[in-house]
Amino acid sequence: MLDLHAVLDGQRLALTRLLTQIENQTEAGQHALAELFPHTGRAHLIGVTGAPGTGKSSLVNQLALGYRKTEAPKKVAILAVDPSSPFTGGAVLGDRIRMAALSGDAGVFIRSMATRGSLGGLAHATAGMVQAFDAAGYEIILIETVGAGQSEVDIARLAHTTLVVEAPGLGDDIQAIKAGILEIADILVVNKADRPGVETTERALRSMLQLAHPVAHVFRHHGQALDVQATAPESEALWLPPIQRTVAADGQGVPELLAYIAAHRVHLEASGDLARRERARLAAELDQRLQDALVEHWRAGAQAGELEQALDALLARQLSPQEAVQRLLNGRKG
Amino acid sequence: MLDLHAVLDGQRLALTRLLTQIENQTEAGQHALAELFPHTGRAHLIGVTGAPGTGKSSLVNQLALGYRKTEAPKKVAILAVDPSSPFTGGAVLGDRIRMAALSGDAGVFIRSMATRGSLGGLAHATAGMVQAFDAAGYEIILIETVGAGQSEVDIARLAHTTLVVEAPGLGDDIQAIKAGILEIADILVVNKADRPGVETTERALRSMLQLAHPVAHVFRHHGQALDVQATAPESEALWLPPIQRTVAADGQGVPELLAYIAAHRVHLEASGDLARRERARLAAELDQRLQDALVEHWRAGAQAGELEQALDALLARQLSPQEAVQRLLNGRKG
Repeated sequence: MLDLHAVLDGQRLALTRLLTQIENQTEAGQHALAELFPHTGRAHLIGVTGAPGTGKSSLVNQLALGYRKTEAPKKVAILAVDPSSPFTGGAVLGDRIRMAALSGDAGVFIRSMATRGSLGGLAHATAGMVQAFDAAGYEIILIETVGAGQSEVDIARLAHTTLVVEAPGLGDDIQAIKAGILEIADILVVNKADRPGVETTERALRSMLQLAHPVAHVFRHHGQALDVQATAPESEALWLPPIQRTVAADGQGVPELLAYIAAHRVHLEASGDLARRERARLAAELDQRLQDALVEHWRAGAQAGELEQALDALLARQLSPQEAVQRLLNGRKG
Repeated sequence: MLDLHAVLDGQRLALTRLLTQIENQTEAGQHALAELFPHTGRAHLIGVTGAPGTGKSSLVNQLALGYRKTEAPKKVAILAVDPSSPFTGGAVLGDRIRMAALSGDAGVFIRSMATRGSLGGLAHATAGMVQAFDAAGYEIILIETVGAGQSEVDIARLAHTTLVVEAPGLGDDIQAIKAGILEIADILVVNKADRPGVETTERALRSMLQLAHPVAHVFRHHGQALDVQATAPESEALWLPPIQRTVAADGQGVPELLAYIAAHRVHLEASGDLARRERARLAAELDQRLQDALVEHWRAGAQAGELEQALDALLARQLSPQEAVQRLLNGRKG
């Protein structure tokens, strides 16, 4: 049994068990999340994303250390999500090892998660784990992702503040990635800033930022997962993503980065963006859960072999996929 | 109006128009796909994926040239999908320019597509465009993707033969990416093989292959999108992914790579894997379409403001997402 009082009380073992249930998407995990939901909504969710080789993990470590080393240390959770490893789950092991420096601190909780298979599964499990950390009283939740693609966009949609990490000299195609990812960035970080080429990288980012803003900035709140009416007018004060150089290896630039994160939080609250993002986030979750429930409901009422027969007809090119769906749905209306 | 006879007849302008309708997910596009479906199922779908900086685009160009320069040239379509650019759609422009060398050839059709927003949207549109190319008589369809993540896995699920491209010296985190992506590879390519470090890269790939196979190989057909009973027994003959060095810049290794692709096609047919992959592919499409239709059907019957009210209750933490979904679904049963 999951002990939810122990989770709310901040007991690590209870939280660990809960996270496993959430990752495995069990009934018990879902039930626990429903129970814990009223206790969520307090944490600051910070997404950290960027291409491989930028040193994201070290930077996340430094941020966590920063939050611990202030006069009023905050409880910090690190969730390292690896969408690039759909089968083995072994790829994030390196991150775990690198974070050993933090593991003796009772105010820090580190969890890695590889993709569990289904397309929506990762976003689902990530959202659930973030809620669990939130309910357990972690004030700062750092969500780190590897790779470049849709998963980053999903994480950004989950986070309040999104850091996009770059580094000098990562090869010629890197430019192509930046274009898309820049538009989800609240703060840009040029890590490994002691390497040659840092000026070039920063200059490229700055010129791409000018292309991307302000239009892209204003419109990015209109997330497409929300069929709920978009309620976001233009922000009263625009946030223009700052660029901060860091050297995660020795902590250089990290205090300044922490200050930018704090400033972004203030901006979110003052502009009303925080409420809008919260609403968008919950709307996306509701949307996804509704979709899952509808499919489950349909399946529960499906006749044995119904789907197989439709599939056979597709393979024989007797039906198009569109016609097959019509047939499967119509059978249900009688 | 879309002229489907012109599409089936191989007329480029008609195909271009159709592709735009599919990309924009219009009714007309969906209707056309349903009509064209009986004419699909003949093309060889080849996925080409890998991290940024590996020279995928140049390699795809070379493969296309290779298929054109034989005694019996094949019609080749190139679909360059960029999941990393969810907003601007500008990132693949570079690829378009690089492929200009092929653009004078009437037997080659090149199309780029950036993410259209929704998580499932890209996979949806990609599958539709591949069907259009297939119906229009393109015998080889090269599907190129940028980045590393779930989108690659989706593309691999779509393709008959998946090439994973690596290159020497792409940075320290690259190892982490390989782990997941290796397991979707039918053929591994070490491109830029004239660069230093090629032996190291190839050795690393070889040792990772040994870890990944044969177990991962046998199980990868059990795609999780298929709720249709998995019908795949172990393949009679296992395909162990070969590693081929190439230098796309001058075409070195490309004839050997083409031979491996042809050999994989023969393996797919002889082992029964082709039929299994086709079935899995269509099952995934059916699954997705059924899901979309169910959600659409629910929305059509939703009361005005029903979803908004549920969302308000979520924001106030009066309901959990789980309870909200229950309420939304129960209202429908009366």
